[in-house]
Amino acid sequence: MRIPVVERITKANDQVAELNRELLNRHGVLGLNILASPGAGKTTLIEKTVPRLKERFRIGVVEGDIATNMDAERTSAAGAVSVQINTGGSCHLDASMVRDALNQIPLDELDLVIVENVGNLICPAAFDLGTHHNVLVASIPEGDDKPYKYPRTYRGVDALIINKTDLLPHVDFDLDKFKRGVEILNERVASFPLSCRTGEGLEPWIDWLGEQIRRTAAAKP
Amino acid sequence: MRIPVVERITKANDQVAELNRELLNRHGVLGLNILASPGAGKTTLIEKTVPRLKERFRIGVVEGDIATNMDAERTSAAGAVSVQINTGGSCHLDASMVRDALNQIPLDELDLVIVENVGNLICPAAFDLGTHHNVLVASIPEGDDKPYKYPRTYRGVDALIINKTDLLPHVDFDLDKFKRGVEILNERVASFPLSCRTGEGLEPWIDWLGEQIRRTAAAKP
Repeated sequence: MRIPVVERITKANDQVAELNRELLNRHGVLGLNILASPGAGKTTLIEKTVPRLKERFRIGVVEGDIATNMDAERTSAAGAVSVQINTGGSCHLDASMVRDALNQIPLDELDLVIVENVGNLICPAAFDLGTHHNVLVASIPEGDDKPYKYPRTYRGVDALIINKTDLLPHVDFDLDKFKRGVEILNERVASFPLSCRTGEGLEPWIDWLGEQIRRTAAAKP
Repeated sequence: MRIPVVERITKANDQVAELNRELLNRHGVLGLNILASPGAGKTTLIEKTVPRLKERFRIGVVEGDIATNMDAERTSAAGAVSVQINTGGSCHLDASMVRDALNQIPLDELDLVIVENVGNLICPAAFDLGTHHNVLVASIPEGDDKPYKYPRTYRGVDALIINKTDLLPHVDFDLDKFKRGVEILNERVASFPLSCRTGEGLEPWIDWLGEQIRRTAAAKP
């Protein structure tokens, strides 16, 4: 009995996700789904990214959390139109939650919508939100074994931020072991080692993201 | 339709959890359920704990992961009888998985069974495994806002390890803000700030755990 119910939920989710993608495409707006463990630095990445893009692009942020609106306050202060979703216990966002949030932001005035998923390295990977790219934020203190232990999540992402590189001298982390694990699962992923804290390494990420925004805008019908 | 199914799953889980607790009690074995985000240091905590207790107590470890048996190899090398559960995608352990694992280890020769849950700060909190105590491993680089954002998990734990204190000089972490968040949710929790890497602060945790093991053994029928 359990499996048919789960399949039905996933199928309904995929249908709404497709509608979200059509909505974003119609407005020429790039959608990102940011995934990570709790505390890997998703919100900080958005805080550092928005000011570096906001002269050229208009940005919306959809914040997903079980509780609080702390993150939407932070991304709003960074200069993004921000909406908070509280999942009330659910361990991931789904396409319907994102649809409700997209209806609350002025898509015709935006170029980019960043969706920050709930901090969880497992469940969010199973739910398409209708964004264009999944971006995973890994972080150095989490350890170099994570691609091996969370293969589904690493396999399904288009860009990989390797955050907190400033902590490399202070923890045991074998960057080669980590990269080998990623390559086995996902050889075409775009990787960006960086430190949100020091700002080092942010530019290649900003350049990649700017290019994706321009491509989506150019494809606007 | 969805909610009755979820309730039925939870209820069945609770029944098996109760059987697990009876099984452990019958053998006078303390059971711990270790919860944490990916990379907070659950396995490392077990690696550091086992050698400090193994002269006095016999220890079993049940390792839960989506994939690989890397962690069971590590805890086995540390001197614990170890069993690996691969959940094959499931984001948490449940009582049935733990029951299968308990049947594979010699409970009549043990004093302590440590169950390491899947790395996830959300879903494991909803599933009683039939252990005696939930132990949460938080870590400094995860950030000081986690109690506020994951209230259910922080509310349901009996002991809180605050790991990676050696990184305090290198990250922005307000220990008072973190502790206030914990106290609001769970004022009776036993807290242990420590560094598995340097060993600093491990002794109070080892003492607390030794005391719990002795109490459970003394209550053996």
